[in-house]
Amino acid sequence: MRFVLIAALGLTSALPALAADLPPKPVRLGLCAACHGETGMAQMPGAPNLAGQRLDYLRKALNDYRDGTRNVPLMRTAIGPLSDAELDQLVRWYSAQTPQPQAAAHP
Amino acid sequence: MRFVLIAALGLTSALPALAADLPPKPVRLGLCAACHGETGMAQMPGAPNLAGQRLDYLRKALNDYRDGTRNVPLMRTAIGPLSDAELDQLVRWYSAQTPQPQAAAHP
Repeated sequence: MRFVLIAALGLTSALPALAADLPPKPVRLGLCAACHGETGMAQMPGAPNLAGQRLDYLRKALNDYRDGTRNVPLMRTAIGPLSDAELDQLVRWYSAQTPQPQAAAHP
Repeated sequence: MRFVLIAALGLTSALPALAADLPPKPVRLGLCAACHGETGMAQMPGAPNLAGQRLDYLRKALNDYRDGTRNVPLMRTAIGPLSDAELDQLVRWYSAQTPQPQAAAHP
């Protein structure tokens, strides 16, 4: 019985996270949510939706904003003070959100 | 009767396009689909999902790739020969797609 329980636990932890399993809400989420929304649907012209975006792309985008490869002063200022761990929380949060379709075409 | 018909036609054309109304498939879609998928779900590490992304963001991204503000040689090469009208078709196509949630977290 003990063996079965241990084996079952091992199996569970080896499974990939289900899409419904949201990561914990990042401490710094408010900073991003003003433009990108808490769930990654943009709140402002020019800001991209982030919901369901790929982790690898979001990670590279933040690195590129931070080192100036993508020269967007607002983003550089916003993420400049954040630690790598905080950025990682944000990337995981937004990637795990379910993207919503556009309500209608906009110009 | 004729007046009513004309008024109704005028009203219909003033309504915004429904989300289900997809724009025509762009002639150059194959060029983008290799990495971003026909429906805007990325097929390759590093490529972002484009389905349901905002029109304004996609337009600026393509302009930035074309003029080198975003220095991504692959993108510059890919879109360099395209006309403004072709880029606009692509932007409208991808923005009108329904984004899909991620199947599971990926590293």
